[in-house]
Amino acid sequence: MNMDSDNMLGSLNLPADLKNLSIDECKALAAEMREVLVKTVANNGGHLASNLGTVELSIAVHRAFESPKDKIIWDVGHQSYNHKLLTGRYKGFDTLRKKDGISGFCRPGESVHDAFISGHSSTSVSAALGYAYAMKLRGSPNYAVAILGDGAATGGEFFEGLNNAGKSDANIIVIINHNEMSISKNVGGLAKYLATLRTKQKYIKTKGKVEKLLDSTPLVGNSLKNTIKASKNAVKNIVLRNSAPTLFEDLGFSFVGPVDGHNISELDYALRAAKTIGGPVIIHVNTVKGKGYAPAEHNPGGYHGVGAFDLETGNPDAVSSDSFSCVFGETLTRLAAKSTKICAITAAMKYGTGLDKFARRYPKRFFDVGIAEQHAVTFAGGLAAAGMIPVFAVYSSFLQRGYDQVIHDLAITNAHVVIGIDRAGIVGEDGETHQGIFDVSFLSSIPNVKIYSPSSYEELRKCTDRAINTDTGVVCVRYPRGNDKSEYEPSYVSNSFTHEKVGSDTLIITYGRLFNEVYKAHRKLSDSGILTDILKLIQIHPIKSQVLSIISGYKKVYFFEEGILSGSIGQQLSSVCKNVEVCAITDFVPQASVNEALDSLGLSGDKIYEKIKADFNENKA
Amino acid sequence: MNMDSDNMLGSLNLPADLKNLSIDECKALAAEMREVLVKTVANNGGHLASNLGTVELSIAVHRAFESPKDKIIWDVGHQSYNHKLLTGRYKGFDTLRKKDGISGFCRPGESVHDAFISGHSSTSVSAALGYAYAMKLRGSPNYAVAILGDGAATGGEFFEGLNNAGKSDANIIVIINHNEMSISKNVGGLAKYLATLRTKQKYIKTKGKVEKLLDSTPLVGNSLKNTIKASKNAVKNIVLRNSAPTLFEDLGFSFVGPVDGHNISELDYALRAAKTIGGPVIIHVNTVKGKGYAPAEHNPGGYHGVGAFDLETGNPDAVSSDSFSCVFGETLTRLAAKSTKICAITAAMKYGTGLDKFARRYPKRFFDVGIAEQHAVTFAGGLAAAGMIPVFAVYSSFLQRGYDQVIHDLAITNAHVVIGIDRAGIVGEDGETHQGIFDVSFLSSIPNVKIYSPSSYEELRKCTDRAINTDTGVVCVRYPRGNDKSEYEPSYVSNSFTHEKVGSDTLIITYGRLFNEVYKAHRKLSDSGILTDILKLIQIHPIKSQVLSIISGYKKVYFFEEGILSGSIGQQLSSVCKNVEVCAITDFVPQASVNEALDSLGLSGDKIYEKIKADFNENKA
Repeated sequence: MNMDSDNMLGSLNLPADLKNLSIDECKALAAEMREVLVKTVANNGGHLASNLGTVELSIAVHRAFESPKDKIIWDVGHQSYNHKLLTGRYKGFDTLRKKDGISGFCRPGESVHDAFISGHSSTSVSAALGYAYAMKLRGSPNYAVAILGDGAATGGEFFEGLNNAGKSDANIIVIINHNEMSISKNVGGLAKYLATLRTKQKYIKTKGKVEKLLDSTPLVGNSLKNTIKASKNAVKNIVLRNSAPTLFEDLGFSFVGPVDGHNISELDYALRAAKTIGGPVIIHVNTVKGKGYAPAEHNPGGYHGVGAFDLETGNPDAVSSDSFSCVFGETLTRLAAKSTKICAITAAMKYGTGLDKFARRYPKRFFDVGIAEQHAVTFAGGLAAAGMIPVFAVYSSFLQRGYDQVIHDLAITNAHVVIGIDRAGIVGEDGETHQGIFDVSFLSSIPNVKIYSPSSYEELRKCTDRAINTDTGVVCVRYPRGNDKSEYEPSYVSNSFTHEKVGSDTLIITYGRLFNEVYKAHRKLSDSGILTDILKLIQIHPIKSQVLSIISGYKKVYFFEEGILSGSIGQQLSSVCKNVEVCAITDFVPQASVNEALDSLGLSGDKIYEKIKADFNENKA
Repeated sequence: MNMDSDNMLGSLNLPADLKNLSIDECKALAAEMREVLVKTVANNGGHLASNLGTVELSIAVHRAFESPKDKIIWDVGHQSYNHKLLTGRYKGFDTLRKKDGISGFCRPGESVHDAFISGHSSTSVSAALGYAYAMKLRGSPNYAVAILGDGAATGGEFFEGLNNAGKSDANIIVIINHNEMSISKNVGGLAKYLATLRTKQKYIKTKGKVEKLLDSTPLVGNSLKNTIKASKNAVKNIVLRNSAPTLFEDLGFSFVGPVDGHNISELDYALRAAKTIGGPVIIHVNTVKGKGYAPAEHNPGGYHGVGAFDLETGNPDAVSSDSFSCVFGETLTRLAAKSTKICAITAAMKYGTGLDKFARRYPKRFFDVGIAEQHAVTFAGGLAAAGMIPVFAVYSSFLQRGYDQVIHDLAITNAHVVIGIDRAGIVGEDGETHQGIFDVSFLSSIPNVKIYSPSSYEELRKCTDRAINTDTGVVCVRYPRGNDKSEYEPSYVSNSFTHEKVGSDTLIITYGRLFNEVYKAHRKLSDSGILTDILKLIQIHPIKSQVLSIISGYKKVYFFEEGILSGSIGQQLSSVCKNVEVCAITDFVPQASVNEALDSLGLSGDKIYEKIKADFNENKA
């Protein structure tokens, strides 16, 4: 990547200079940006297709609005790479998703142009409405702009935001970037509806202000005037009032669209129009996900969130058969052959959770509900009440959205629902918003919930089978992002826990992926002449009474845990077993590779080794 | 209340006999039911207005459907009293909301006719869709019916459910009971939209199946045939296809309505029509909240959820100025006079949270967002990012809905948002679904969150002031339902904690309302010659280092806590202070008065006294 000033990104004063560019210059800039996107994501991993689709939209938004006075909120933030390139972060963009580097999501601490944090979906309208009302209260004439993909539009919070924004008189502009594709292929009644809008004749529908719009207010920048002139035909097409009101107008919005999201002239006009209309406005923009990079355009699902990939072949390594997600999906598919009761649910993560095989094999028992974790949990409760065995596979940090529903709709009635908690523990480069560090704490505080945390594929298969076919009530099986790196002996594989005794009076307890680190430390300590016993838990909640009696036999017990300390299993144990010291996570964990993160948390094999060795040396002294 | 068999409720075989009643008999039954409702709620407290509004609807639903084969899900369950009277719970209805009595919400353990638990709002479509898909998978011809008020329609999960149901071909019928009034006066774009539908000409809009409908399939029960005959005019009015598609049709539903929800003939027809149409259908029903009892009809907000009231004057005692809620609202209103930054947010609980005064005084800074806790939290985050000081007053158990947003949209960026957590701890008669027992656990596990738990009005005022004007980040102030019953000396009032020393080597720690019980025990123990010191916490998280050093000075420390044990403050403390024994809640807490519940949890003054006395006697022996 050439990051000197021979190119526009390196030489322009952004975003201010954008307003003075001609359309042709904008197109050249767009081409340059696509090149940077593809190269950077090829090296660093990240979200490619969604950003390739929003190049022109990002340029147009920063031409029409004045960030940071106007507040631009990207939902989800993974479509904000272009926004970052246009707001002073081209230099350093090669650190994208690296430790201490540029975040893959919007992060207010990173730039004044990142108006709101956005790692989780469907929050933008709510956040923008907060800004818009604050502006109104202060008499500020600025705008709050929420930009979301149609995937984010499937989340209930989006509707809550719309419902409140639509009745307001605040200057909030909601841009729905319709690419017919969220992370998996989009689902739901709204998606179908948006698809019909996509092909409708363009129009701007206002609440009686169209006249004002037509003898247009002064435009900023000469080039924009030219733009408007040049696109007279587009303008004519855009302003048509004879259509039926859209769903959004029913909720109180003015409506502009559909707009070609790769045509900067048209975008310029539509955004300007939305500003002139005032009050809550929705703009429907059509884009092509993956635009401009053939492999991604052809297979946007495969390029949603990818690791580093080969630039020539475009081969992403995201959907790996060597992953806990895939093993979970395969296990489920295998079990579903034996029981017609088993149903699988995903919240827009069919591929990410490894459920694609299940979906192909048992389409009638597979439910992709969109980015709607609340619904997913309650829907599972309904299926369970009707005698089915629903399995909801969901990323740990996204299950936070269904917390109330797990309590209210499942646990109180002890419904038999299995939750496959993917991306449990440290997720690495996605950073704070995506770390799966709260699930053990919030789930173990709910009565009637059982939690397994297998360390290996073989254990994952066993736990999943047991959760579905033997257990009752709410059963969670949690497993990390990535693949099985375990190097220990098969003897560690068990149903509930493994107690490895070498005759020490010191015990190390852990569970899940972290066992690999503990095992490294255990061997390194052994090499230094320090013997430690190991207790590897699989069923981590509720804790079996045998575990308590094992612990009581030791002088000193360490509990290492890849989750938040407060409410952790270790803390719960140490509350009743006074010989237990807990080492867990006490703060949000920023982006870095998993190994880097574990090391800075004191949870790598080396750090565990160092801690225990230091304790031994101190006690000797 | 006369519960013998001289009346219809006592003598009919319900719900089966309903199908054979004439319209006039239905009307007589309705009158009888209203009498039972008013008398029971006058004695026991509960939800009056919403149930008075759904008498005819409940009768019609049980005429049209065959529960429990068809699944009827009430959302929220507080409108299900009639459903209970019609499904075998007339006998025993005088135990409504009492310990071991009939629940004020739907509870599957109570009756096969309660298809799904429903204490929290907006879940019915999701749960019903689970049932409907399960029926479809089994080839069952039955129906799943979700009945919700327009208040529940403001919740995002409702939209998630609609979005998924609309694209399905499952037999799900969604009845929106539109009374223009959820708990507070309803809000949002959808509410306005429903109001326009309310006055529209009646119609049934199907996806091309109207013909099939008109030469109607066989009807069950002769009386229904008569009903249809008798209401020919209604039928003519009902079937009109020349209107614009409704928002619900845009999402994939067939649409029936509006229907007069107090006209059983019309309801009969509409429900039958919906069954015939098949697939996802929405029925828009208009009702009058409080129908048939003048005081409630006149002031439905005042009769939403009430304590026992005077039957003659109809005077409810719900909105009491002697309550923590009211003191919180007053404090906020007072502080808002000094700072124009302070905004107040409620999720449809303007009265319940005592914010009505603030709303009258500062309408521009007051936001009732509907039953939309997710939006409320993110919206607060947006306001805070824009420099305002938002205060979200919300019931503890409903804040569970905003858990992810507190983490993601507030805590990660350390946004200064104040959350007033009302109904913290045991709430009493509303039972499992409404107990505020999880907030301390789930909030204290989130980094950057501070929690106060005042015991008295004076402390509540101080904490609120400090949370708004001194603290930074996310600050929670939690307080119980009801009024200040504290009888202790003013010396206990402090900013952070109070340490009352009488020279014992035993310390009792607690916080919040439970201090009253601990104080009773402390005095009773003292009368028995057992001295105990007391540590009353106000800032319960994070725990100050002084507290740890106080604890370390004692031989034995008890921590009594009115919240779930796992992740509790006591457990966190006992993990590091090995002399601490924690007494908290370990399971869901069923309905009973607050005193009854505390006693059965071992947390009443008497039980605390008995526990400590027994420990002393044992140690002596």
